[in-house]
Amino acid sequence: MKLLIVNPNISESVTALIEAEARRTAAATTTLQMATAPFGVAYIETRFEALVGGYATACAAAEHAGQFDGLVVAAFGDPGLAGLKELFDVPVVGMTEAALASACLLGQRFSIIAISHRIQAWYRECVAANGLSSRLASVRSLQEPLRDIGSVQEDHAARLEQLALQAIEQDGADVIIVAGAPLAGLARSLQGRIPVPVVDGVSSAVRHCESLVALRPGSATQGSFARPPRKPNAGLPPALAKLLN
Amino acid sequence: MKLLIVNPNISESVTALIEAEARRTAAATTTLQMATAPFGVAYIETRFEALVGGYATACAAAEHAGQFDGLVVAAFGDPGLAGLKELFDVPVVGMTEAALASACLLGQRFSIIAISHRIQAWYRECVAANGLSSRLASVRSLQEPLRDIGSVQEDHAARLEQLALQAIEQDGADVIIVAGAPLAGLARSLQGRIPVPVVDGVSSAVRHCESLVALRPGSATQGSFARPPRKPNAGLPPALAKLLN
Amino acid sequence: MKLLIVNPNISESVTALIEAEARRTAAATTTLQMATAPFGVAYIETRFEALVGGYATACAAAEHAGQFDGLVVAAFGDPGLAGLKELFDVPVVGMTEAALASACLLGQRFSIIAISHRIQAWYRECVAANGLSSRLASVRSLQEPLRDIGSVQEDHAARLEQLALQAIEQDGADVIIVAGAPLAGLARSLQGRIPVPVVDGVSSAVRHCESLVALRPGSATQGSFARPPRKPNAGLPPALAKLLN
Amino acid sequence: MKLLIVNPNISESVTALIEAEARRTAAATTTLQMATAPFGVAYIETRFEALVGGYATACAAAEHAGQFDGLVVAAFGDPGLAGLKELFDVPVVGMTEAALASACLLGQRFSIIAISHRIQAWYRECVAANGLSSRLASVRSLQEPLRDIGSVQEDHAARLEQLALQAIEQDGADVIIVAGAPLAGLARSLQGRIPVPVVDGVSSAVRHCESLVALRPGSATQGSFARPPRKPNAGLPPALAKLLN
Amino acid sequence: MKLLIVNPNISESVTALIEAEARRTAAATTTLQMATAPFGVAYIETRFEALVGGYATACAAAEHAGQFDGLVVAAFGDPGLAGLKELFDVPVVGMTEAALASACLLGQRFSIIAISHRIQAWYRECVAANGLSSRLASVRSLQEPLRDIGSVQEDHAARLEQLALQAIEQDGADVIIVAGAPLAGLARSLQGRIPVPVVDGVSSAVRHCESLVALRPGSATQGSFARPPRKPNAGLPPALAKLLN
Amino acid sequence: MKLLIVNPNISESVTALIEAEARRTAAATTTLQMATAPFGVAYIETRFEALVGGYATACAAAEHAGQFDGLVVAAFGDPGLAGLKELFDVPVVGMTEAALASACLLGQRFSIIAISHRIQAWYRECVAANGLSSRLASVRSLQEPLRDIGSVQEDHAARLEQLALQAIEQDGADVIIVAGAPLAGLARSLQGRIPVPVVDGVSSAVRHCESLVALRPGSATQGSFARPPRKPNAGLPPALAKLLN
Repeated sequence: MKLLIVNPNISESVTALIEAEARRTAAATTTLQMATAPFGVAYIETRFEALVGGYATACAAAEHAGQFDGLVVAAFGDPGLAGLKELFDVPVVGMTEAALASACLLGQRFSIIAISHRIQAWYRECVAANGLSSRLASVRSLQEPLRDIGSVQEDHAARLEQLALQAIEQDGADVIIVAGAPLAGLARSLQGRIPVPVVDGVSSAVRHCESLVALRPGSATQGSFARPPRKPNAGLPPALAKLLN
Repeated sequence: MKLLIVNPNISESVTALIEAEARRTAAATTTLQMATAPFGVAYIETRFEALVGGYATACAAAEHAGQFDGLVVAAFGDPGLAGLKELFDVPVVGMTEAALASACLLGQRFSIIAISHRIQAWYRECVAANGLSSRLASVRSLQEPLRDIGSVQEDHAARLEQLALQAIEQDGADVIIVAGAPLAGLARSLQGRIPVPVVDGVSSAVRHCESLVALRPGSATQGSFARPPRKPNAGLPPALAKLLN
Repeated sequence: MKLLIVNPNISESVTALIEAEARRTAAATTTLQMATAPFGVAYIETRFEALVGGYATACAAAEHAGQFDGLVVAAFGDPGLAGLKELFDVPVVGMTEAALASACLLGQRFSIIAISHRIQAWYRECVAANGLSSRLASVRSLQEPLRDIGSVQEDHAARLEQLALQAIEQDGADVIIVAGAPLAGLARSLQGRIPVPVVDGVSSAVRHCESLVALRPGSATQGSFARPPRKPNAGLPPALAKLLN
Repeated sequence: MKLLIVNPNISESVTALIEAEARRTAAATTTLQMATAPFGVAYIETRFEALVGGYATACAAAEHAGQFDGLVVAAFGDPGLAGLKELFDVPVVGMTEAALASACLLGQRFSIIAISHRIQAWYRECVAANGLSSRLASVRSLQEPLRDIGSVQEDHAARLEQLALQAIEQDGADVIIVAGAPLAGLARSLQGRIPVPVVDGVSSAVRHCESLVALRPGSATQGSFARPPRKPNAGLPPALAKLLN
Repeated sequence: MKLLIVNPNISESVTALIEAEARRTAAATTTLQMATAPFGVAYIETRFEALVGGYATACAAAEHAGQFDGLVVAAFGDPGLAGLKELFDVPVVGMTEAALASACLLGQRFSIIAISHRIQAWYRECVAANGLSSRLASVRSLQEPLRDIGSVQEDHAARLEQLALQAIEQDGADVIIVAGAPLAGLARSLQGRIPVPVVDGVSSAVRHCESLVALRPGSATQGSFARPPRKPNAGLPPALAKLLN
Repeated sequence: MKLLIVNPNISESVTALIEAEARRTAAATTTLQMATAPFGVAYIETRFEALVGGYATACAAAEHAGQFDGLVVAAFGDPGLAGLKELFDVPVVGMTEAALASACLLGQRFSIIAISHRIQAWYRECVAANGLSSRLASVRSLQEPLRDIGSVQEDHAARLEQLALQAIEQDGADVIIVAGAPLAGLARSLQGRIPVPVVDGVSSAVRHCESLVALRPGSATQGSFARPPRKPNAGLPPALAKLLN
């Protein structure tokens, strides 16, 4: 099967990180196509940045329409995700919802470890939109501004591990979610050092997207995830307009 | 004071409808500036259409940055609203949240009368994002495709009134919200025919936006509604990029 | 338009404070009529005190029945509010619900800064009754008994400011609500010192009540906010009995 | 032990009904003292009527302060209950909360059968204030105005039974609550005709109040149910003022 | 009346503790029959232990089928409770649900004081299954492993009292629930030292079970608590199989 | 990898159905070991039956301890699941939670189509225990008693399809979950006839269990899903006792 993985921010270094982790996870028979947002910001921490990233992801994915069996939106917070699910008739999976699915299968309450203080509000709202606030033990995050989005794991390894341990001991987390594409792969390097399961977003998203493609549940031609009703539009990139007409 | 009112869809006829209702409501000392989404769809019924409309609204509003004391996002469902609140340091009010505020002040439970079946899921999610699901009595809507978005009030007046009465009698609504910019003004024409208060989105949004400007609560320089942190960006319209830099 | 503002506690000094703030906010064309509870306690901190204050407000307002276009119940916690909305066919607005409406339009999560520890439980229950617990970041309050209800702002200014800053930094508040009629006007004096919007109850209530009157939504003759069904009654003050017969 | 049972409405016929049912339930060693609201309405269906009834109950109970070991507030909807619990340092039990406690011990989800359509909103809010909305299967009620509040059981027996059966079959109720003091005793007469447990408010309240007295849990001198803080008051009935000073 | 009280763990010392407290509470006319789980663990702290304890309780109670008017499941966390309610057509009451009922009648928010850190998750889920999470102020517990389950009260008296005081002062508890059969009776010994009501599980369960038997609400022959539908079974203890056939 | 799949009821015909569907789904490199509950009932519809099935599943799985990389509990309603997750240090996945995970990744709201009316209450409680009640559009079920649990798909195909269509049209379901091991494979045969995605429990559980094994998240040695603390036990099957010691 062919999966398209779109990085909703403009950082090619993050796309490379995502790709490395995705290739480690994907089945041998899965082909991965990467894309980076054609416009937007270096990394997404806020609702406005997610709005831009969501639209940019739609534009990027539309360019490949008809060429993939599943789409992965590879930013925590799932920018534009619900809208993108309407647009394509193949499974569309976000990093957050995938991590939440893994976490819910592994325990009752989970904590999210994040890369910036500002990002917390957006993550909480994303968990709430998934209806899972009652299973969220806490969100804990780095506090200081990031020196380099591409090296955040290396720069802050010890602090990130400490945040995970605090979430277990003080917040009652049964599972740790390491959040944000810049932390892709950190879960592996924490292995054996954290006394509860640790979930990674990229690998969860790739794996769950493969599963949905394999399970062949069928797509929506009615209901709220069917393609938007045909109607006049204007000013959209041609690939996107084509999907709506 | 000066208010900018942006119609997130591309229909100039809807912008005209919004403007007419807004002018009826606004204080004599309030100046209204209208804008229509520079790209998008004819009217917004789905999450994807709201994603496009939200970004288009940001682009339109950015063109007027610094020239308004308050911003009204004039589509029910509040496309992009939380993101837009981060972007500007003046009050930003959405039609739905404004109608919900009016309804909550007038009674305990409200019903929403909408113009299309498809639009219901998006409205429900919008009410949930406002944390108000426990006060939502029901969403009721027209079922048939719309002949003309500019004349939906005239075409369906009797049916819309009937839906409101059913919401009161069968769903226990204390207040009726007439939803969607294409229904702007319908609340006035229903006056005296519906035995509970009827709330209109456009006039609520204009009035509440004026109130927030007048109350001078101050703006956010910290917390999750402060301007997004400065960071590299690319490919954004110049007016938008300027707001982020 | 004419607004009646009732102070549900018996402190004339608090009534004066409310009036001063209300006059600053009200439109030039709005006439304000003040009333103080004819019986009750010096200030309201508990559910029982609110029960007394609610009934006293009904008695006071009934004396002016037919002479106002809108009624403001000027105690935080909204004593008797839902009942009062049934009694009058004009908009009836409480200080808490008005502050919550302002706060919800200005951000996602709010904290309440209150004047006594005891008052916290009642405020939490009031927020819950408004269906907004998911948007409440925290309630923080002064802990020590009050020397003088009329000078609490002056006596505790620094501590109140500190509580607001803690709510932002530690509880994730996007908006601060300064609660309680004795703090009317404090929001203004905090201006520029708190890095998020600050909401005042009295001015929010006056402004939103004016809005509801202006929007002319109609009143309830059916549903749960219609006048109570006519039935035998006894022992009520004549003005109140007249409203029920 | 001595229990004071206050009927928050002014109907002596309802007081008699309550007393009859209470005497059937109370232990031989329990002494019952009845009181009827000194002012108010014939029966309580709305939030405003409950406000009056709550204050009237406080006035009535205060007359007997120090002479009872437990207090039963004998109207469904529990007028003024949370406030009354602050006022007295003995157990204070409401008919609704008592019926809810019984129902929760007998099954997972319950339905409430009520005597008037108007009363439904108030009952729902009462269940919500108890935090039990997730266990409420439905509220079903008579629709027509009552001929005589004292004979509602006899006048509407067949319809009330039918409502209970509908709640079981259509709403998934595991338990039926027969609500409202005017229906006191109906549960007994339905015995054997309803295929799930049926709960009566008066007998539940008497029994649970006796239990709380017997269990000797201690009373609150701190926390939100302690006596309200001492402060100036005015215009209260002497017995009530005495309790606050 | 005859009550069967089953201890779902295998510790006879705990059964003795339960019996002592139950006899103090039960009416003179109530006969108590004790039973101890025929298999399982020394005390129940986790979901798996509760699964074993629930089935063991069913096996133990089935041996006495037809010989009791009410059944008390005497472990906090209520192992197997909902299933047991289906099995018998007499009232079946769990220690947790009984303590919650008492606590809800005594205040708005309660805290649970527990004997082990591990037990907290299970208790929280039990409160949630009762639909009462919004009334839970906190769970606080001993942290260290227990020396002897039969003497935990004596070994940790001071610490347990301290936890209760912290729950009141820091978590806003209106009521304290002393949780776990090994703490049966502790509430009595804390009397006068805790400034809010203190609830004991065993005595609450006995008392409420007596009440339900006395109230004669009838049993379920329809709905989700009727006896399970007759169908093939295998390998069950004869007494249990007999109940299902 | 090796997966153990336990059928918590005693029907070998259902085990065969589960195995057939599981083999269709499992990766070529996955080895499946089937087990049937050693005691219990023919199929599980109620909380008590689930209690028995949960314990029976523990007994069956303990016999294979150390011989599997993942465990699937193959009954809808997930009998004993949370307890089983404590017992084994490999991923343990239930049919319901797996189906819910698939459904949540495919849309916002789902409906469950079930094989008996009685089963509805248990399923609703299971969804609630997963924290997902806000995403449940409805549960719809066959009403009549089943002739043969092994042929329910064939006997009721048309009715099951009709229930799914009603859930979409009347309840707003975005996704259909076909619930219950006896319906394993029905989702495939409905393909193309239902206009939204259709989720099957068995194949979802197998696939997600494989994913969790492959993702290597680590297991819990702390927190509420660690192995239960060592303590005296008695009367357990040797294989189970060995796991606890």
